[in-house]
Amino acid sequence: MARVLVTGASGFVGRQAVPILVARGHEVIAVGRPDAEMAPPEGVRFAICDLLREGSAAELIATCRPSHLLHLAWNVTPGRFWTDPDNLDWVSTSLRLFRAFAEQGGQRFVGIGSCAEYDWSHDFLRENETPLKPQTLYATAKVAFSSLIQHVAPQLGVSVGWGRVFFLYGPGEKRGRLVSDVFLSLLEGQPALVSHGRQQRDFMHVEDVAGAFVALLESPVTGGVNIATGDCRPLADIVSAIAEQTGRPDLLRLGALPARPDDPPRLAADVRRLRQEVGFQPRFDLAAGIADTHRWWLAQQVATT
Amino acid sequence: MARVLVTGASGFVGRQAVPILVARGHEVIAVGRPDAEMAPPEGVRFAICDLLREGSAAELIATCRPSHLLHLAWNVTPGRFWTDPDNLDWVSTSLRLFRAFAEQGGQRFVGIGSCAEYDWSHDFLRENETPLKPQTLYATAKVAFSSLIQHVAPQLGVSVGWGRVFFLYGPGEKRGRLVSDVFLSLLEGQPALVSHGRQQRDFMHVEDVAGAFVALLESPVTGGVNIATGDCRPLADIVSAIAEQTGRPDLLRLGALPARPDDPPRLAADVRRLRQEVGFQPRFDLAAGIADTHRWWLAQQVATT
Repeated sequence: MARVLVTGASGFVGRQAVPILVARGHEVIAVGRPDAEMAPPEGVRFAICDLLREGSAAELIATCRPSHLLHLAWNVTPGRFWTDPDNLDWVSTSLRLFRAFAEQGGQRFVGIGSCAEYDWSHDFLRENETPLKPQTLYATAKVAFSSLIQHVAPQLGVSVGWGRVFFLYGPGEKRGRLVSDVFLSLLEGQPALVSHGRQQRDFMHVEDVAGAFVALLESPVTGGVNIATGDCRPLADIVSAIAEQTGRPDLLRLGALPARPDDPPRLAADVRRLRQEVGFQPRFDLAAGIADTHRWWLAQQVATT
Repeated sequence: MARVLVTGASGFVGRQAVPILVARGHEVIAVGRPDAEMAPPEGVRFAICDLLREGSAAELIATCRPSHLLHLAWNVTPGRFWTDPDNLDWVSTSLRLFRAFAEQGGQRFVGIGSCAEYDWSHDFLRENETPLKPQTLYATAKVAFSSLIQHVAPQLGVSVGWGRVFFLYGPGEKRGRLVSDVFLSLLEGQPALVSHGRQQRDFMHVEDVAGAFVALLESPVTGGVNIATGDCRPLADIVSAIAEQTGRPDLLRLGALPARPDDPPRLAADVRRLRQEVGFQPRFDLAAGIADTHRWWLAQQVATT
C-alpha cells in the first residue's frame, strides 16, 4: 500500500484512476482544480489546488507527503491544448512538483505523456527505438518535462515511469473530440460529419487507460511506456461502431470532411512494455468499450432532460 | 535604443555584457543575485533578485518592463552545474520569466545555451544541421528550455535568439576551469597538470562572448547561433600560450592527467551565422586574449597581497 497523490484527479483519466487506486488498497489524495466538480469515493481525501499558482506545488507536497505521485494534471482543453502558451506554465509547475516530491522522500513518480512525442513519419511507435520529434507545443512540453525528470531521477533516488497515451475515449469525454462529437451528433439525430476514416489509430477506453497508469505506478518500470491496446484500426471502424451501437448508421457521413493534410496514415503502438513488463491487459475491446460509452451518454441525456 | 534587462549581470559573461550594452546606448537594468558583488557602470540600474524564488520572475518583469531581455542567469558553478538538480529550477524560473516578458510586451529575447546541446559524435557543429543530443542534465535543461520558447515565440510575438557558447576564458573566470586553473598554478609557481592536450576546442575570450551576445540581441536573428571564434585548436596550444605568457613553460605538464574517456577529439563550431547573419567579429585572437587574461590575473595578485 502506498500513499498516492493524484493530480488532475477531476480530469478525464484521473476520475477513473482514483477508484481503481482505492480498490487496490492505496491511501489516495486526489487533487483537483478549484472549479472541479468531483465527488471522490469514500475514504479519499480531496484537495483543491490551483497547481499553476507559483508555490502551490511545494505546499501540496509538504502537506500530503506522498510516497507515490501520479501526475495527470495538464491543460487538455480540446482544440486549445496543442498550442496554448500555458504549456510552459505546466512544465514549470511540474518541475517544481517533481523536485519537491523527490526532496520530501518520494519514491515513485508516473507522468502522462503522448504518442505525439514520437516522430510521426514512423507508423509503428516503439518506446526505445522510435525517435522523438514533437511538432506541437504540447508535445514539445511533454518531451521537455519528461527528458529532465528522467535524467535527474537516478541521482534523486526517484523511480520515474512515463506513460505515452495514444488515443482514448469513454465516459466523461468532453465535446470537441472524435468519439464524443460522433456520439453527440448521432444521439441528437444529426448527421455526423467525419473524414475518409482510413487513418489507422489505436483507441483505448479511458478506464483501461487509467488502469494502465495504476499498473505502471505500482510497477518498477522506468522510462517511456506506450499506453494503448495494440489494436490499431481505421477510424472508420470506430465511428461505424458508434453508428451501429446508437442505431444510426444512416447519419454517418464518412468523407464529408477533408482529412488534415498532415494526418499520418497509421500510428500503431508497440505494447509489449505495457503487456509484458508492466503486466497490464486491457479489459475492453472496441465493441465493449463503445457499448459502455453509449450507456454513459444515455445516462447523461436522462440526467439533463 | 532598447530597455534591456540583463539577468546574471554579476556573472562571468554578464559583467562584460553590461558595459558593452551601455556603450551601445541602451538603457540597462542589471539583475544580480543577493550575494553578488558588483559595481555597475554609471547610469545602470542594478536590481537584486533571487530568480529561483517562485514568483520573483513575474515581479521583476512587472517592475522593469523591458523591451529586450538578455537572460544569462543559470547555475554555472564549476564542477557542479552539469549535474545539479537545480537545473530543473532554472528551467522552471526561465519559463516563467519568458512568459511574463512576452505578456508584458517584450520584443526580443536572447538566452545562453551551450555546445553541449549537440551530438558530440559530430566534430563540426552546425546550428541547423547537427542533431541535438544532450548528455548531461545541464545540457538537457538548456535544450528543454530553448525548444519550448522557440516553439511558442511566434505566437507570442517575441523574437528569440539562442546563443550556444562553446568554450570561454578570460578576466573574472572562477577556479575549477581549464584556463583559470593553469593560470593559477603557473602564477603560484606550481606545476600545471593537464591531459595530453590533443583535444581540439574553440576557446573565445569572455569579452568577445559578451560582445557576440549583445550583437545577437540587437539583431533580428532567430534560433540557435554558435558563439565561437571559428579557430578550433588543440588544448595544448591554449595551455602553452598561458605557459609562454607567464614565462613558466617549465611548469606545464602535458600528459600528467588522464584524458576523460568520453572526451571528443574535436568540437569545432560553424561560425557563419554569427559572422554573416549577426555580423559579429571577435576582437581577440588567442595570443591577445591570453595576454589580456594574464594582466587581469596579475592585477588580482596585486589586489590580494
